Amino acid sequence: MTSFEDLPIRDDLRGRSPYGAPQKVVPVALNVNENTHPIPEDVAHDIVARVAAAILQLNRYPDREFTELREAFARYLGHGLTPEQIWAANGSNEVLQHLLQAFGGPGRRALGFSPTYSMYSLLASGTGTEWIDAPRDADYELSAETAVAAIEQHDPDVVFLCAPNNPTGTPVSLDTIRAVADAARGIVIVDEAYFEFADPGTPSALELLEGRPRLVVSRTMSKAFAFAGARVGYLAADPAVIDALRLVRLPYHLSALTQAAALAALAHSDEMLAMVDEIRGQRERIVRELGRLGFRPYRSGSNFVLFGGVDEPGALWQALLERGVLIRDIGLPGSLRVSAGTEAETTAFLEAIALFAPSAANRIGA
Amino acid sequence: MTSFEDLPIRDDLRGRSPYGAPQKVVPVALNVNENTHPIPEDVAHDIVARVAAAILQLNRYPDREFTELREAFARYLGHGLTPEQIWAANGSNEVLQHLLQAFGGPGRRALGFSPTYSMYSLLASGTGTEWIDAPRDADYELSAETAVAAIEQHDPDVVFLCAPNNPTGTPVSLDTIRAVADAARGIVIVDEAYFEFADPGTPSALELLEGRPRLVVSRTMSKAFAFAGARVGYLAADPAVIDALRLVRLPYHLSALTQAAALAALAHSDEMLAMVDEIRGQRERIVRELGRLGFRPYRSGSNFVLFGGVDEPGALWQALLERGVLIRDIGLPGSLRVSAGTEAETTAFLEAIALFAPSAANRIGA
Repeated sequence: MTSFEDLPIRDDLRGRSPYGAPQKVVPVALNVNENTHPIPEDVAHDIVARVAAAILQLNRYPDREFTELREAFARYLGHGLTPEQIWAANGSNEVLQHLLQAFGGPGRRALGFSPTYSMYSLLASGTGTEWIDAPRDADYELSAETAVAAIEQHDPDVVFLCAPNNPTGTPVSLDTIRAVADAARGIVIVDEAYFEFADPGTPSALELLEGRPRLVVSRTMSKAFAFAGARVGYLAADPAVIDALRLVRLPYHLSALTQAAALAALAHSDEMLAMVDEIRGQRERIVRELGRLGFRPYRSGSNFVLFGGVDEPGALWQALLERGVLIRDIGLPGSLRVSAGTEAETTAFLEAIALFAPSAANRIGA
Repeated sequence: MTSFEDLPIRDDLRGRSPYGAPQKVVPVALNVNENTHPIPEDVAHDIVARVAAAILQLNRYPDREFTELREAFARYLGHGLTPEQIWAANGSNEVLQHLLQAFGGPGRRALGFSPTYSMYSLLASGTGTEWIDAPRDADYELSAETAVAAIEQHDPDVVFLCAPNNPTGTPVSLDTIRAVADAARGIVIVDEAYFEFADPGTPSALELLEGRPRLVVSRTMSKAFAFAGARVGYLAADPAVIDALRLVRLPYHLSALTQAAALAALAHSDEMLAMVDEIRGQRERIVRELGRLGFRPYRSGSNFVLFGGVDEPGALWQALLERGVLIRDIGLPGSLRVSAGTEAETTAFLEAIALFAPSAANRIGA
């Protein structure tokens, strides 16, 4: 049998394994930061109606410029944005890949603050962009000073700021973002994939776009909109950035089905986002309860919580899985990550992990 | 106002314009080789039902391995193929991009036989792969001798064979494909995007896959399946090739909507492909009538016809557009390209172009 290593694949791919969390079917899946609330039924009906209309014309190519969808994203984001400032693609991963294809590539450097979303370095590698891991402060925080020092040291062509940061949940202040945007000579991408879960009143980096043509704010419908299966990421930036992305996107990259489904969901954004408050409540509950159990949850502005104080992450992950609860071992020493689910899912997680809590150790061990 | 040229874009993107035919709304659009027949109504109903079921679970990520869809493609293609030999992506452009990401890239060369599908060289450029234009024989034909000579001269890492060839329509014999596969040390991609429109009995390159782990046969649902709006391309190859593509694809690249719609259409492949015979009939009619009008149609195994004998392609293109008929000026001297539409669309095209036929020139000019 032929192995892919026998084929003339690129040398930098040899020995690699594909990205991705294990796909397991379990009663309580809290491992990939999905929104575990299904789409409200009346919204689902509207999506079906709009998608059905698109199906009748599927023999034709979709609108290459996804004009109506860009208008809807501009309205949703507010901040005086216009459709000319909007881009979208099949998931925010593809949005970020477009940015690296336009502004990264061979001979260029992208920088992120580790630990951060692991796709950044994979996307960099896939586009031939050198990747630089810069450090964070204690507890995964990122001050303006620390961030600017890394930029001055490495002079990157592209900077990734994950705000709040995945997989740690850490919020990033507008002060840090502003300092980075002003210090960097390259493109600065603020990835707000989890922004809608931030505490009420938290300002978005969208506020900083005016007058900063190299600043980009990316978002996704996967999380707050419960739309992971539809694969819709988007960004807002200066119209000149959008023009550059048109040079690297594949023609007709957004299907007519994707455009129709996203438009229908955006027409119901109030209802779709009503779940966000509930999820934020469950996140606060996880933080509170894990603390009470003797774990060390980190500050989170997202729909998930990273917690330390775990003696053997692999063993605890396995023990929870055996109880039907799937969370994520992201490889940070002494830590695991859990997504905030529905109230029932969160209860199942908290009951299962209580059996292995540091504060219960003497009881269990007895 | 900032222009994209003011931003730090990659040097090789400077001065470029985005790819794409003009998007115009006209009564008779025969410019981008779409299948102008809408999807049959009962099939559309089934697609809606299957997509509706997917919408209820859109909050979860889709099956990253699109297992059911790979099974359905293997069944559709026959030739003893198994799901482990199937790959799919958002349009065949993305399938080809994945191949270049795995087997092309900086320091590597891709070769095609010009004129051919213009996205090949754009995809090569987008992945940092050097592009080599090799010549064809007279009338855009491609003999085994001519093809093998180019491969021996340039020793490419990736070879593109468009069979039948876009934009010329030219069929490619299995002899030529076999000779190329045996002569090349790199990956050989046979792009059968328009294969279903070939004359009945034409063998597919799928027959040659056995024992050739570097041979790849790509297809699309855009044309024969009237599914351009859904963006579904796929390929068949050795399982080792599929393993290599897993290293470069973005995780969850195929949405749950795309997977559901494609599965429903494949379940009705007989009905979907019934349109193909009708379209092939209109293509033959175009070839016959254009010949009678004094144009010079080339041999076509696809759903479109390239024809020479046009004195001023730009002027004729414009004159047809003014009569509500949009075809394509692909920049080949003295030539234009037209897609075979429904019977009524084909009639509209033939009536419009008859006014400007070489054989009618003295009448018009009189």
